Amino acid sequence: MLSHSAIDKLKSICGEKDVITSKIGMYAYGYDGTMLWGVPEGIVMPESTQEVVDVVNLCREQGITIVPRGAGTNESGGSVPVDGCIIMNFSRMKKILEVDIENYVAIVEPGVVNWDIQEMLAKYGYYYPPDPASWKASTMGGNLGECSGGPKCFKYGVTRDFIYGLEVVLPSGKVIWVGGKDFSSEPMYDMTRIFVGSEGTLGFITKIAIRIQPVPAAKKTMLAIYNTPEDGSQSVADIVAAGIIPTTLEMMDNLIINTTEDFVHAGNPRDAGALLILEVDGHPGDMDEQVKTIGEIVKKANAREFKVATSADEVDKIWLARRVAFGSVARVRPNYGVNDITVPRSKFPQAIAGIEKVKKEFGVTIGTVAHAGDGNLHPLILFDQRDKEEVETVHAAEKELCKMAIALEGTVSGEHGIGLLKKPLMIQEYGPATMDVFKKIKRAFDPQSQFNPGKLLDL
Amino acid sequence: MLSHSAIDKLKSICGEKDVITSKIGMYAYGYDGTMLWGVPEGIVMPESTQEVVDVVNLCREQGITIVPRGAGTNESGGSVPVDGCIIMNFSRMKKILEVDIENYVAIVEPGVVNWDIQEMLAKYGYYYPPDPASWKASTMGGNLGECSGGPKCFKYGVTRDFIYGLEVVLPSGKVIWVGGKDFSSEPMYDMTRIFVGSEGTLGFITKIAIRIQPVPAAKKTMLAIYNTPEDGSQSVADIVAAGIIPTTLEMMDNLIINTTEDFVHAGNPRDAGALLILEVDGHPGDMDEQVKTIGEIVKKANAREFKVATSADEVDKIWLARRVAFGSVARVRPNYGVNDITVPRSKFPQAIAGIEKVKKEFGVTIGTVAHAGDGNLHPLILFDQRDKEEVETVHAAEKELCKMAIALEGTVSGEHGIGLLKKPLMIQEYGPATMDVFKKIKRAFDPQSQFNPGKLLDL
Repeated sequence: MLSHSAIDKLKSICGEKDVITSKIGMYAYGYDGTMLWGVPEGIVMPESTQEVVDVVNLCREQGITIVPRGAGTNESGGSVPVDGCIIMNFSRMKKILEVDIENYVAIVEPGVVNWDIQEMLAKYGYYYPPDPASWKASTMGGNLGECSGGPKCFKYGVTRDFIYGLEVVLPSGKVIWVGGKDFSSEPMYDMTRIFVGSEGTLGFITKIAIRIQPVPAAKKTMLAIYNTPEDGSQSVADIVAAGIIPTTLEMMDNLIINTTEDFVHAGNPRDAGALLILEVDGHPGDMDEQVKTIGEIVKKANAREFKVATSADEVDKIWLARRVAFGSVARVRPNYGVNDITVPRSKFPQAIAGIEKVKKEFGVTIGTVAHAGDGNLHPLILFDQRDKEEVETVHAAEKELCKMAIALEGTVSGEHGIGLLKKPLMIQEYGPATMDVFKKIKRAFDPQSQFNPGKLLDL
Repeated sequence: MLSHSAIDKLKSICGEKDVITSKIGMYAYGYDGTMLWGVPEGIVMPESTQEVVDVVNLCREQGITIVPRGAGTNESGGSVPVDGCIIMNFSRMKKILEVDIENYVAIVEPGVVNWDIQEMLAKYGYYYPPDPASWKASTMGGNLGECSGGPKCFKYGVTRDFIYGLEVVLPSGKVIWVGGKDFSSEPMYDMTRIFVGSEGTLGFITKIAIRIQPVPAAKKTMLAIYNTPEDGSQSVADIVAAGIIPTTLEMMDNLIINTTEDFVHAGNPRDAGALLILEVDGHPGDMDEQVKTIGEIVKKANAREFKVATSADEVDKIWLARRVAFGSVARVRPNYGVNDITVPRSKFPQAIAGIEKVKKEFGVTIGTVAHAGDGNLHPLILFDQRDKEEVETVHAAEKELCKMAIALEGTVSGEHGIGLLKKPLMIQEYGPATMDVFKKIKRAFDPQSQFNPGKLLDL
């Protein structure tokens, strides 16, 4: 329990209404996008870097640990409370501080929602490419903590590729700026990248300099439908091998085609083995040739249908099923577990085959959505949380999927972080020598393990 | 002096001929691209990761420090020997281990020369974008240690943007792999970027997974000539503001135009204030529109001439002067100091004005070559090393240029590293809190300061 004096001090820093200690508050901030759960001792909602510093200093002196939180949409337990912690909720730090078109940069606070930045930038004809499925809810601080990807990331890169620099409050209470404020590369050890994906375990981000870019002048959206997921995955390999880098290469399997049909009636054939949504963007002069080449490639890989959208309505229609994919599976079973395995693109067909094998071996229901260009697959395992035995089987199947990803020289976490869920798997992926270096980095920044303790690794 | 037993052990690890202790060897490895100088105790040339590990372990036990070295073309003292060190020359580790076109990746050893990779990739229609001026001599390990840039880096990014992962030998003798081996992003703290640009102070790189990409199908090369550098720099800002991202935006000032004319007779007008070499690349369908827009923009910014190359010969002619720019100044004065300041692109005109001011104030001769799109300027200060008084003035002028870059929110080192030369300036650029974190990182990896000690920072 937080002492009365600690609560009073937190209130004097953040203001009366920005410190929550009620039971209902503890429930509201107890979970994230996983099924994990914890109970914090309090919630603080700072509105400035100085307030963050003051809270950090107070908590250090009193031995209170802090778990940072944005919108809580994360999928691996990173923002789930740990024993005795307070939650630092960044959602009030949501200002877009600067949009500098000349230097292709915007400076934002961590609590701003990804979509709000897109809306602001659209006024200038610019955008910020990383577009996680959660972008209408998730915050930039969260995107950064998890190194989020998204459908556009194959061509443009993930969150880490769009961060110029960061203002960080360290566990010592010191405030540093890491990286640059624009394109110019910065000398010395580039610390930007160790903070991206660190889930608040090394420091709390209070300002973010993001790279923005002009909206491409032209875009073409295509849909290819296959009898088998193998044919679909072969197309992916063939398109990239032909030197074409689409913006988007999104794949859905037969189960997801059916759950989305039930839900939104997108008009996709229920007997298809897989569908692929493809987008290319760039200058208007390129589009026709790329579309033609892609059409030839997918037909060679036995696509039974290939459509090119000719209007905004047709684009929306192609995307409709993909947009509701995750939610649609709720009609089949009450719960689903999102996996986030990633393999080298050339091994994508093997990963698809591996998922089929797990389905059969464990008797589990899996629907797969994939950012196929990146080799990033989200096999959703459907189940009922109330059936303890089924939950056990699901966990075993998840472990098998992860084992398969590592065996294919991939990773168990492509864009959803590590948090608590993936933590036990890290030793398999990295081995003891590398884990030891990760621990040294954690200790160098946070010797008392005060920031999001127990996440990513155990010391 | 190395003991006889240490020399014998080194020879038993690397082989008799791959350990040099002769006086002439010490001279050959005593310098880099700066005017700094040092004398090592020996040179070892390992041929495998295991040999690197064995040498590192031996040196750790014996308290011998190690300075890594590639081709020695670096410009800030990073590979200059320090007292009592041995030089680890990586030039025998020069294999291209794997070219994996399907996954857009190649795995190379650190001693391979950048150009040799380009030649190998060209056979597949692929390339590796970072192209430092030294690319026909400099090694990938050196490019990585300094985070090299180059003319193509405005559009495509610098070395750090093309490194997927690294095999690193740590000061402990342990071998780790950091980052991925392909596009898939890796979870946990991303250590790739702290090694890129670390000049061998944290670990020695023994394998590098680089991102490769298809050679663009089309390219256009343009030349714009201006009466004043101000007009040229305005064009740079205007082109980028129009949403065009050229591959290359290289600028040369009046002095460099004249020194290159003396040298290669490229046919550029000697009274021009500046010239700009512009390249765009991509799909053939884009080229004409981009060239047209650029032509309109540069004319609006008072370009007195605008040429578009229509043949490979004309492309070569446009590049001729730029290629010999650095060497050409030797005809004016025997020595030159390369500065490497970088400012936000929008402040490029201010940086050009700042250089003019330094010229007048200090009475020094400066010729400027710039990667203008990146805001990266190389003002070359020309002088005679034998004139001690002049050397003092040059140093003072260099300091003033660096001060100006920092005042414009830029950096004193865009792509040439820190080494010994820029080390004293880091505190101004970062302040004590950030420097303290850099030191913690160095100590976490190299507690005994055995790897390239005294470079980048003092502990």
